[in-house]
Amino acid sequence: MQQPVIELWFDFGSNYSYLSVMRIGREAERRGVALAWKPFMLGPILRELGWSDSPFVVQETKGRYVWRDMERQCAKFGLPWNRPRTFPRRAVLPHRVALWGESEAWIADFCRTVMMRNFVEDRDIDSDQAMFQVLGALGLPPEPIIEAARSPANKERLREQTDEARARGVFGAPTFFVGDEMFWGNDRMDDALELASRAG
Amino acid sequence: MQQPVIELWFDFGSNYSYLSVMRIGREAERRGVALAWKPFMLGPILRELGWSDSPFVVQETKGRYVWRDMERQCAKFGLPWNRPRTFPRRAVLPHRVALWGESEAWIADFCRTVMMRNFVEDRDIDSDQAMFQVLGALGLPPEPIIEAARSPANKERLREQTDEARARGVFGAPTFFVGDEMFWGNDRMDDALELASRAG
Repeated sequence: MQQPVIELWFDFGSNYSYLSVMRIGREAERRGVALAWKPFMLGPILRELGWSDSPFVVQETKGRYVWRDMERQCAKFGLPWNRPRTFPRRAVLPHRVALWGESEAWIADFCRTVMMRNFVEDRDIDSDQAMFQVLGALGLPPEPIIEAARSPANKERLREQTDEARARGVFGAPTFFVGDEMFWGNDRMDDALELASRAG
Repeated sequence: MQQPVIELWFDFGSNYSYLSVMRIGREAERRGVALAWKPFMLGPILRELGWSDSPFVVQETKGRYVWRDMERQCAKFGLPWNRPRTFPRRAVLPHRVALWGESEAWIADFCRTVMMRNFVEDRDIDSDQAMFQVLGALGLPPEPIIEAARSPANKERLREQTDEARARGVFGAPTFFVGDEMFWGNDRMDDALELASRAG
């Protein structure tokens, strides 16, 4: 019997992706579900939907609500939280690193560390310095990883991954796939995991 | 000690409001929380946010997802579901009736019956005939109720109720209030009830 798989499509700039990236490892393991990390660029997809910026920036009323909602959600899940002064943060380089390292043993730790840097430490994540610090803190050699992440082939893969998200109907982040079944938002993570564990 | 109160702000045309209207009675009762029914007109509020129609109509990709999500959510909560051929359905008259009857013993049954007519029977809800049938089925005298609902004073009250929603930061439906704390979406109903029951 094959182990069931859940795909987590996320953007390091997305606050609701922060919740799922931090929570999913333990929840998937508890249910015996394998996890596929799928970083993609949410910005281009939102722009095609007509958003000039994050909906939480464009629609101020909704934005105000979202920051309160994040405080409550983080309290509920026992996660640290500081509203970032820059939102949404650009995240091209960490996406390239995550994509390059998607099958590495360090992928989960890397994703959580980048998310904490954005949504707890309130620091830039899209610079060489940021990646040096994150990878270094995980005991990894930053230079060869950043170089590989920046290779033309890996850059092209991130574009293709974003194209795949669009083609499969992704319009926000986080988004989960269990086979062809799509679930949008951290609020659907448990439903998606439940379906995956039944599919096993 | 005063009984804690949860306010449910809803629009009869809103599919996620359908979930909350059907679910909230039993859940509030179980927790000893009193329920205030708050019908309002979502359409004008969405238009002010820049939507020419429901976001689920304007953004086709999201719309397609929403109908699949509704099937899954209704299955999860044990609710019947048929995707309405007309969406979002106009609901001015049932909103006026619900507002006029907000403190009547029949308000919960009325709201559920209108929602079932829209999202299960797939029938018009904004006509005299629709209201005759709904009120009649509840053993109520339709004519005096519809007449009172249509009085200038009650029409004005619905406009004021919508103004209040806007002033309090409502940008979608369903929305819950527990005191000044706002929760958006059926996905937050349990959190809102939990807060209300702790406040008791």
